Amino acid sequence: MRYNVTMVIFARGFEVAGVSAGMKKSGRKDVAIIRNIGPNKVVAAVFTSNRVHAAPVKYSRHALSKNDGRADAVLINSGRANACTGEEGYKNAVESAQYLAKLLGVEDINRIMVASTGSIGKHLEMDKFLPGIDMAVEQLNTSFSNEFAVASAICTTDTVEKMAVYSHTTGKIYSGKTLEDFEQVDVNENSWKIGAVSKGAGMIAPQLATMISVITTDAVLTSDEADEALKYAVEYSFNRIDADGCMSTNDTVFLLSSGTSKITPDLSEFKEKLLEVTMSLARQMIADTEGASHDIEITVINAEEEVHALNIARSVARSNLLKCAIFGNDPNWGRVLASIGVVSESDAVFDAENIDVALNDVWVCKNSGIGESRELVKMAENRAVSIVIDLKVGSKSATVLTNDLTYDYIKENAEYTT
Amino acid sequence: MRYNVTMVIFARGFEVAGVSAGMKKSGRKDVAIIRNIGPNKVVAAVFTSNRVHAAPVKYSRHALSKNDGRADAVLINSGRANACTGEEGYKNAVESAQYLAKLLGVEDINRIMVASTGSIGKHLEMDKFLPGIDMAVEQLNTSFSNEFAVASAICTTDTVEKMAVYSHTTGKIYSGKTLEDFEQVDVNENSWKIGAVSKGAGMIAPQLATMISVITTDAVLTSDEADEALKYAVEYSFNRIDADGCMSTNDTVFLLSSGTSKITPDLSEFKEKLLEVTMSLARQMIADTEGASHDIEITVINAEEEVHALNIARSVARSNLLKCAIFGNDPNWGRVLASIGVVSESDAVFDAENIDVALNDVWVCKNSGIGESRELVKMAENRAVSIVIDLKVGSKSATVLTNDLTYDYIKENAEYTT
Repeated sequence: MRYNVTMVIFARGFEVAGVSAGMKKSGRKDVAIIRNIGPNKVVAAVFTSNRVHAAPVKYSRHALSKNDGRADAVLINSGRANACTGEEGYKNAVESAQYLAKLLGVEDINRIMVASTGSIGKHLEMDKFLPGIDMAVEQLNTSFSNEFAVASAICTTDTVEKMAVYSHTTGKIYSGKTLEDFEQVDVNENSWKIGAVSKGAGMIAPQLATMISVITTDAVLTSDEADEALKYAVEYSFNRIDADGCMSTNDTVFLLSSGTSKITPDLSEFKEKLLEVTMSLARQMIADTEGASHDIEITVINAEEEVHALNIARSVARSNLLKCAIFGNDPNWGRVLASIGVVSESDAVFDAENIDVALNDVWVCKNSGIGESRELVKMAENRAVSIVIDLKVGSKSATVLTNDLTYDYIKENAEYTT
Repeated sequence: MRYNVTMVIFARGFEVAGVSAGMKKSGRKDVAIIRNIGPNKVVAAVFTSNRVHAAPVKYSRHALSKNDGRADAVLINSGRANACTGEEGYKNAVESAQYLAKLLGVEDINRIMVASTGSIGKHLEMDKFLPGIDMAVEQLNTSFSNEFAVASAICTTDTVEKMAVYSHTTGKIYSGKTLEDFEQVDVNENSWKIGAVSKGAGMIAPQLATMISVITTDAVLTSDEADEALKYAVEYSFNRIDADGCMSTNDTVFLLSSGTSKITPDLSEFKEKLLEVTMSLARQMIADTEGASHDIEITVINAEEEVHALNIARSVARSNLLKCAIFGNDPNWGRVLASIGVVSESDAVFDAENIDVALNDVWVCKNSGIGESRELVKMAENRAVSIVIDLKVGSKSATVLTNDLTYDYIKENAEYTT
């Protein structure tokens, strides 16, 4: 191996830990801390736009407005989302941040960010959580096993840990779940990287309260640059995984910059690389929807405005009928057209009589009517399904990722005991 | 029996037939005609608002704009929806109307209405359809067996025929599927009635192209009155069954008045009774979603505006997560709150911290937090599930009906071969 086994996932300038505080019935890890020990300590965040949002979201959003874009640590628990828990829930979120601030010697509590994921409508078990924070702080270090523990500790119904790294030395994106998958990440001291973890088994199946991601970099960013880059990357990745109306109360994404590399990257380049990292995580989440048999990529082309393309792709991604058809390997393009047609004239310009649709590269629908034979469409063989919708009214495009709707989606979401 | 077995379902002044033209693989009935032979011959119609709509919808919408609100007959076929079929599809719709007009001696083709339901993206088999129209015209009469044949001929994946009658003599609504169910309908010649059929196995599962209803009355209505009454009844019944983004390309509702009773009803009263009839049909459709284990009634109360209540009820009705939870008999009120929270501020005024939610009359959520014990909620025992959401900001309310999301929904929609 070309590198020392330390901070393989996260960037230099951080130390991390993931432990079990016994808040999950399964006994799995449920508390994670990502501490910024670099010179920079920049933080940016994107939160759920759900008007009903959890106490940790309220707390962190407020703290971010008071800390000048600087944070010393992120504290995450899984098991309980601390959502719909009223004043006591907020008090618990604040108390957990205070507790960690004290342990780390951080004077300004607003420099501690928190996030929670798990069941809604249940209070955090503080008698377990606070000792868990103690334990995690004691274990903070830079080992790969701790990095992996963080990726595990933020999971709920996820079946696999989600990690992605960009190495500016190699110019490549790395993902996987073992040390070997990241073997080629170069920790060249004269370069910078982006390293991230996330949880969420597809936006199609936010069984709990839902997606959380922590992204670190040792590149030097101002907090404004971090904010701009994060908003850009989230918009074109996490926000384009099927948003099926089941938007979570807890969605939170943090970008932390340690500045340890002392290298200030070209911002445009950094944004694109950050997007590659978040897109890798987004695909990992889509792929982890339990029992899903197809990952579906819906691309709308030749729209008048990008937002029109996006509105149509989202409408198609929300069609339960279409998702069932794809589960059944049925190239049912009529359901694609029907879900395009519900998009209002103010949300998208198109001629309802002049739309082409391709399923796995076969143009089964031409001019909103019967095109090439649906017999030509091969769906059963591959997990990936591609839907391309040509509006023929402009030059803008957008892509949304989703999954098929399967028995196991129902099973998981009906039988999970909250 | 207190009545002659003739026109038990439909009103006086109509004759009907339902036959098999061999367009369904199953050999089941697939062509229906409802002919107005009264003095009035008024028609009103409501069509899908999907921008991608079928040829019969295009044709009938155009015809209605040319016929001064008068029609001699409605022609319906099932098996193929004649949607996404381009110019040839439109030509076929016109040809079928012309064919029927000629057989009935109707000079103005615009006085023939048509509707189709079935698979999208396949052409009508005119070599079977036209002989089917011949057959149906030959059989037109006023027998209950023909009425039942109409209710059958418009079905696709429906497992049961849907019929509803209002008798102004008794003041009651009747529904069912056998002659006995309608035994008490009084055909007093000095009174009026409303009689209707519909198809559609729940808006949650518009497997094909989707809901069609024909409503008849022998009351005297102007075409403007019929239009006003129909729009009102549809708005508060069919439009409040879960619209889950899977709005059909073919939805069509006709109201026909024969005027045979010579009685002009109070319009307000007529509207309310018409709503009771369409609500009965709506409930029958919800109840016919294959495999659904729960019918869910979502009522939002104390909203500032009725449309706010409706927007929230619809958002909740569209939550796959909540529908899965209810299938699992899990009183998961957190998923209710999460689906309320995605409604934008322009679409509904509410305080995200001050919402109450009752599941089957147990106020499990108070002030957006933990309320009465969820253990008190009994769900497994009954098919009906009631969700009441109290916004506490006004006095307006709205109700939306939906179903739970089950294995059988997936099965039917994945395995149905289009």
